[in-house]
Amino acid sequence: MATELSPALREQIENTIRGLTIDAVAAAGIGHLGAAMGLARPVFQLWDRHLRFDPQDPDWPLRDRFVLSGGHASMLLYSLLHLFGFELPLEEIKNFRKLGSMTPGHPEYGDTPGVEVTTGPLGQGLANAVGMAIAGRATRSRYGVGDEGPGQHVVVAVAGDGDMMEGISYEASSLAGHLGLGNLIVLYDDNQVTIDGPTDISFSENVRGRFEAQEWHVQEIDGEDVDAFDVAFAAARAEAGRPSLLITRTVIGHGSPNWAGLSKAHGGPFKDGEDRLTKENLGIPLEPTFHVAPEVRTYMDERGKAKTQARRKADVAFEAWRGSHPERFAAWKAARERSLPEDFEARLLEGFEGETNATRVHSGAVIQRLFEAAPIWLGGSADLAGSNNTTIKDAGFVGQGEDPFAGANLHYGVREHAMGAITNGIALDGTFLPFSGTFLVFSDYMRPSLRLAALMGIPSTFVFTHDSIFVGEDGPTHQPVEHVDALRLIPGLTVFRPADGIEVAMAWAYRARNATGPVALALSRQKVAALKREAPFEPRDVWKGGYIVREPEAGLDVILVASGSEVALASEAASMLGTEGIRARVVSIPSAELFAAQDDAYQDSVVPDGVPVVAVEAGTGEGLRRWVGRRGLVHGMKSFGKSASYQALEEHFGFTAPKLVEAVRQHLNR
Amino acid sequence: MATELSPALREQIENTIRGLTIDAVAAAGIGHLGAAMGLARPVFQLWDRHLRFDPQDPDWPLRDRFVLSGGHASMLLYSLLHLFGFELPLEEIKNFRKLGSMTPGHPEYGDTPGVEVTTGPLGQGLANAVGMAIAGRATRSRYGVGDEGPGQHVVVAVAGDGDMMEGISYEASSLAGHLGLGNLIVLYDDNQVTIDGPTDISFSENVRGRFEAQEWHVQEIDGEDVDAFDVAFAAARAEAGRPSLLITRTVIGHGSPNWAGLSKAHGGPFKDGEDRLTKENLGIPLEPTFHVAPEVRTYMDERGKAKTQARRKADVAFEAWRGSHPERFAAWKAARERSLPEDFEARLLEGFEGETNATRVHSGAVIQRLFEAAPIWLGGSADLAGSNNTTIKDAGFVGQGEDPFAGANLHYGVREHAMGAITNGIALDGTFLPFSGTFLVFSDYMRPSLRLAALMGIPSTFVFTHDSIFVGEDGPTHQPVEHVDALRLIPGLTVFRPADGIEVAMAWAYRARNATGPVALALSRQKVAALKREAPFEPRDVWKGGYIVREPEAGLDVILVASGSEVALASEAASMLGTEGIRARVVSIPSAELFAAQDDAYQDSVVPDGVPVVAVEAGTGEGLRRWVGRRGLVHGMKSFGKSASYQALEEHFGFTAPKLVEAVRQHLNR
Repeated sequence: MATELSPALREQIENTIRGLTIDAVAAAGIGHLGAAMGLARPVFQLWDRHLRFDPQDPDWPLRDRFVLSGGHASMLLYSLLHLFGFELPLEEIKNFRKLGSMTPGHPEYGDTPGVEVTTGPLGQGLANAVGMAIAGRATRSRYGVGDEGPGQHVVVAVAGDGDMMEGISYEASSLAGHLGLGNLIVLYDDNQVTIDGPTDISFSENVRGRFEAQEWHVQEIDGEDVDAFDVAFAAARAEAGRPSLLITRTVIGHGSPNWAGLSKAHGGPFKDGEDRLTKENLGIPLEPTFHVAPEVRTYMDERGKAKTQARRKADVAFEAWRGSHPERFAAWKAARERSLPEDFEARLLEGFEGETNATRVHSGAVIQRLFEAAPIWLGGSADLAGSNNTTIKDAGFVGQGEDPFAGANLHYGVREHAMGAITNGIALDGTFLPFSGTFLVFSDYMRPSLRLAALMGIPSTFVFTHDSIFVGEDGPTHQPVEHVDALRLIPGLTVFRPADGIEVAMAWAYRARNATGPVALALSRQKVAALKREAPFEPRDVWKGGYIVREPEAGLDVILVASGSEVALASEAASMLGTEGIRARVVSIPSAELFAAQDDAYQDSVVPDGVPVVAVEAGTGEGLRRWVGRRGLVHGMKSFGKSASYQALEEHFGFTAPKLVEAVRQHLNR
Repeated sequence: MATELSPALREQIENTIRGLTIDAVAAAGIGHLGAAMGLARPVFQLWDRHLRFDPQDPDWPLRDRFVLSGGHASMLLYSLLHLFGFELPLEEIKNFRKLGSMTPGHPEYGDTPGVEVTTGPLGQGLANAVGMAIAGRATRSRYGVGDEGPGQHVVVAVAGDGDMMEGISYEASSLAGHLGLGNLIVLYDDNQVTIDGPTDISFSENVRGRFEAQEWHVQEIDGEDVDAFDVAFAAARAEAGRPSLLITRTVIGHGSPNWAGLSKAHGGPFKDGEDRLTKENLGIPLEPTFHVAPEVRTYMDERGKAKTQARRKADVAFEAWRGSHPERFAAWKAARERSLPEDFEARLLEGFEGETNATRVHSGAVIQRLFEAAPIWLGGSADLAGSNNTTIKDAGFVGQGEDPFAGANLHYGVREHAMGAITNGIALDGTFLPFSGTFLVFSDYMRPSLRLAALMGIPSTFVFTHDSIFVGEDGPTHQPVEHVDALRLIPGLTVFRPADGIEVAMAWAYRARNATGPVALALSRQKVAALKREAPFEPRDVWKGGYIVREPEAGLDVILVASGSEVALASEAASMLGTEGIRARVVSIPSAELFAAQDDAYQDSVVPDGVPVVAVEAGTGEGLRRWVGRRGLVHGMKSFGKSASYQALEEHFGFTAPKLVEAVRQHLNR
């Protein structure tokens, strides 16, 4: 017989969350109290009465997703995970914000069972949730059959004023409203306080009006009224055609006699005895700290088990569904396992030998083959689909047609930042391999999301075309110069700048084979000649990040290292240098990070000591600097580009074979 | 007697703009037709009847500002500049998008008289306009006296669907509405088409509702109805307390029989004879191309002269104002000339010798001194004012108090991206020196704006505090690792990572002395010991970007190059190495770019050949790679950080003196 949740017990549980928060922040000496304390009631109610999850199996694919977009309220999430019986012992709560604990300052995907996503940089979580909701709807459409099977879950995000002020939240909400994501519910923690003071010192817009203008279903509730919350949440879940916003009034630092409602309650710990006063006010014993009363423990243990029990029931229903839809199930399972056919690389590589084209065009062909080999891809562009070559032909568009979530393509609109975070959300869902597309120069609009993909180690793919000044006439605002190198700096992001179709195919194959982190592809606008590889070459050499493309017959005077469209240039220059008696090796570096990760022996075989090295890249080239050394030459860009045809720019900035030859000769004093 | 603008002549002028656009794009072989053709009528009307400017003096400080946020419509702007008599001859229109022309693909600040700002990356121009409007209001408050003097102009931006979809436009509009910028008018080119198709494939929000929710004054008009435009624009100008949005229905590619209204009209040139058909339809002669009919030329010459005439009248009124407000005028003039007191550096440096503190705290003290030395600063933070130490004490906040634009501080809210672009807009206005503040990790949210500041060469200052993993407990989402190096890659951006109060003061002095480009400051959260500089040292050595801080008594075994908080660490390690007989020089590199710009002789005197170099930076350290070479050691971060106290992180990641000593010894095999 289940214990009844009396109002007193409920309050005791909420105050347990608040007490754990106060104590954890006090033990850490720093942390965020206010939002966790203010949200304890509605979010506990959400978890207790509404969300479907299994503490014994945090990765249950049919679970509802919970995203704490305001990640600074991490102690709220950790408290709930602990109390509901996830593998997060009290000891870890005590180690909040300590080195190596499962309770970092902000929730980190992978560090803590039940944490769906790394949050903290504001607005990102909300946009991730939009991605998860798209993935949920797409799962239901592609695999679910009507109302059964996978994809029936909801995605619930908690977002605060900071999230709401970030541009990415508007972008993501605009697209969510446009697509009618009825499986998305956002609880807006309307506590009217930010770090610098009351919200209205800088934020006075009408949030209800804003979301209604963006085609959302909006309700306003008092966060302390659990009955109202239940009614509103049920209405939100029932709303199938629009995302729902619950504007939830809370009081930051709820329970603190002197800090509640003030901006100083955002961060902590409490000072001047306010922790004691707050605990007294809330009826939390001062000692021991990290107190969980037996009756709270009993109730929460029951609830954790009940969640697991409910999951077992769902398993039974799911088995029945599986029995009647074996093909759907098999397809869904194959997607989640990311199964690839045996001849995968061969299929991707077909016909690229000797094929001259822009690498973005090669990439478009590969994307088509990827989808045909395994229809697990879900991709789109930020209003540049034709230029980015990201559209999967005959695979439909999300938001269009009779079944608006059956498509494999997505029109993101001019929303690069949300596109990045939505791509991450789709990756986190775990069913699809998502990719995005825009011009490389606009990777700057997406960097916070790129970084989070790298930090989480998730398989987002970011296609960036028009990867150098050879964008041409659109001019310096559209010509990347520093971007390839700026991407190479992000730890855990694998950047490919492929030189021809073979490198493009193998870069995509690397992505499909390695789901452990994000990949960025920098692709040319202009046509580039297919490489003639004289040296022994296996396509898998591309995965070494750097390899010899061209070798002089005997002797070695200089090594030209290059990437992307400059490898063919370097080859041409090497050939000209040869006729002048300067013996040049050409090294292609499709991925500077992968090359830097090879062992010394391999690196030394490709770029030995004692031979002058010239790096050639139509960008800053700083990412190749280590191979060149201080006295070597980086033949790259030292300024922004200019508006002109790419042929004029090649001349002007020295990226023709004769100009490169001249630069190499000067460098070698020959 | 002025020529009357008959409906027929008006249409002929508009069609001249369209014809020039068609011919320029055709001659370039690539470019954007559609928006320029669709906007010809309302924007010509705007320039002809409403805007105050002087073609003979594009920089007249009292002019109205015009921002073409959708910079791809550049031919509209170039046509107007040419026709109104700015120094932009027809020859330059013919050279559209050619190398070295005054008519690059997107408007570039500095390339063309009358171009107020570089635009193209969508959403930026709109946010720049918000900054210009803030600067206008602040000018009126600080220098204008009531309704007279400077600061009476309006800022008009033209923005399209792409601008509206970008997150930065919502952020900037939210702040504009909050501040009640009555001097801002945005013409929204509602042509319902983007590159990928009709806007409603991805964008269906209610734009009127959105802007009303953001506290704007909204009007909807038909772009072809000039009388309605006049009425609406007059109402917008009269609205003193709210920014105004004119939702202006236009037809992309107006005049083209087969392309008008379609997404293919966005970019061009016209194909399949559509240029001919369009010209015929619009009554534009097919030959000669770039045709300006004599009657158009006559009228436009008159109008250009009338604008100059009106400006002369305004000069008379301004002289009268100047006579009655000599102090105001002098202060305004001093601000625009950026006059600094003679003892400027000495004031900034006072008391920093031997002073241990966080460099962000030093910066806060310097900001106060900057404002006291010259009250020309206007700065703020994205909801982290206390942490960024950016608040000028006793100088008031914009948006608060009796005169809401008298303050020198601005609460940006959690809107980093808009903050960057608004900072640029304030810089472009030319009256104030603006600075912004946030955590370094969130520089990623601002990169598109940082890049544009660098491309334009304008004196925006970006304060980034919490500049390494030593942020500590907030964890990897809040700990920059790659950011200093990613900023160093942007051409024209000067990055300082100062090591102590003296370097902080000189970095700010550099900013104040050099208004030719943006500066970014990376400042520590944690306290850092003041450097003991043994070598001969002048504060101006900081401007060399790198200099010797500590020198062994004789001999030299290793050079430690470091920046920011790691210079003190390197000094401590050098001292320990000395006791072990390893003679180490310590080089501080407050600005890697400035050091790289020194001549070889100086660089070689600081970092000579043949001595092993170890770079020490609590980041990727790639920006110091060139000084180290391939076989040297970069003692930096190879991964993201972790959530822990900064002391624990120093131990864990090897940034204690003993660990650094150990790493150096291993590297030297000693």
